[in-house]
Amino acid sequence: MNILIVHAHPEPRSLNGSFKNFALEHLRAAGHQVAVSDLYAMHWKAAIDADDSVDGAAGQRFDASLDSKRAYEGGRQSPDISAEQDKLRWADAVILQFPLWWYSMPAILKGWVDRVYAFGFAYGVGEHSDARWGDRFGEGSMAGKRAMLMVTTGGWESHYAPRGINGPIDDILFPIQHGVLFYPGFEVLPPFVVYRTSKVDEAAFAGHCERLARRLDGLFTDEPIPFRRQNGGDYDIPALTLRADVAPGASGFSVHRAHR
Amino acid sequence: MNILIVHAHPEPRSLNGSFKNFALEHLRAAGHQVAVSDLYAMHWKAAIDADDSVDGAAGQRFDASLDSKRAYEGGRQSPDISAEQDKLRWADAVILQFPLWWYSMPAILKGWVDRVYAFGFAYGVGEHSDARWGDRFGEGSMAGKRAMLMVTTGGWESHYAPRGINGPIDDILFPIQHGVLFYPGFEVLPPFVVYRTSKVDEAAFAGHCERLARRLDGLFTDEPIPFRRQNGGDYDIPALTLRADVAPGASGFSVHRAHR
Repeated sequence: MNILIVHAHPEPRSLNGSFKNFALEHLRAAGHQVAVSDLYAMHWKAAIDADDSVDGAAGQRFDASLDSKRAYEGGRQSPDISAEQDKLRWADAVILQFPLWWYSMPAILKGWVDRVYAFGFAYGVGEHSDARWGDRFGEGSMAGKRAMLMVTTGGWESHYAPRGINGPIDDILFPIQHGVLFYPGFEVLPPFVVYRTSKVDEAAFAGHCERLARRLDGLFTDEPIPFRRQNGGDYDIPALTLRADVAPGASGFSVHRAHR
Repeated sequence: MNILIVHAHPEPRSLNGSFKNFALEHLRAAGHQVAVSDLYAMHWKAAIDADDSVDGAAGQRFDASLDSKRAYEGGRQSPDISAEQDKLRWADAVILQFPLWWYSMPAILKGWVDRVYAFGFAYGVGEHSDARWGDRFGEGSMAGKRAMLMVTTGGWESHYAPRGINGPIDDILFPIQHGVLFYPGFEVLPPFVVYRTSKVDEAAFAGHCERLARRLDGLFTDEPIPFRRQNGGDYDIPALTLRADVAPGASGFSVHRAHR
């Protein structure tokens, strides 16, 4: 199968760099084709602006969404953007790999999402009306593909526990797993997380690699997170709130997961 | 009082640009000193790397955290970083203003956080031991200052309701409000949010400005979000999980808010 790793760490000799190399070799040894977008090595431009279209802004006023639509539809996107979209089309599975900085992605990876996720490609796909709110959250351009996060963090696992001070890791990652990956149609696997990075010695590294290997082996067979599909009947449209009889009385991120 | 607006939108004539201008004029008319960090106009560099110290990386291997510490302590930070830290020291209140892109900040603003929040400035502050986990979540360099988010989004308010498909707006903003603002000591006010931006005509804009004016008038008097202080007795240290007798049985982001 074809696998894209989007890697967002400034130092090749870092723990993240080592996990990336391990994943690359392990997947290739298993017979997969693997491409890596090493965002720092590529000097990836992080900020959306009018230069994201080779024509610049269409009007006097740059509109991040409408200018993205025009450039995407007209084949006038900046070549770095269309190259990443081609990799996403090619991939059967995508891995986003990053250190958790301030409870989210590093800026360079956020800028990959902001710019590559063009209108017409990752959003604004399908019919938008009062009866149907597009092909998203389970449908869309990435439908049929799988995705997984590989995340490292300096904090302890208990700090990210259900009652940990940082908030539960599943909730911290929800805007990425649900909002960035499930949105355009990816099936999202549970994340691979390494805590307390400063304490990872060689023995611990070997243990993490073993755990990672099992996760990579299950990339196309493990059960994805059972997020509810927007157009699967659980939501009222166009309010897009969970129907009153689905998980009645409950609220928060967790209600968007069908407990099966 | 001194107020810093960190503004992250590529188009001055956008709705965000208009709200920024309104806030600036309103606050100045009330007698405040206001500084604006207009990140796009400043061509803010988003990605952390070895160039963030004027000396480059100290070792053969760049370490985002340790190299940040060394540059901060030695006065060897890139001047764009120290200039923003000076503005934060000067400010009595800070407003982060941005469009919600993919359920988080635009990359350029994430890069402002990633780079300006140096080790020793925004984290790694205070005693770190098994008995005390630093001055953070309610204490730290920003203690005594206030902060507020000004956010716009294309989606409807119902999509961000407690059972809305995007997740509740309070939970989506938690990693920013709690993880970026409360962490170094800011008292965080409830956010100012404008939904469904494509439908904001002149009448709606005037209404939003009226609502914004009241929020700006209350910047130093409104009740902040009652996040629990890390060192206030509610958490077990060093596990940093909520004590068993505090909000017993509950979990998730909301348990870090004392319901008073």
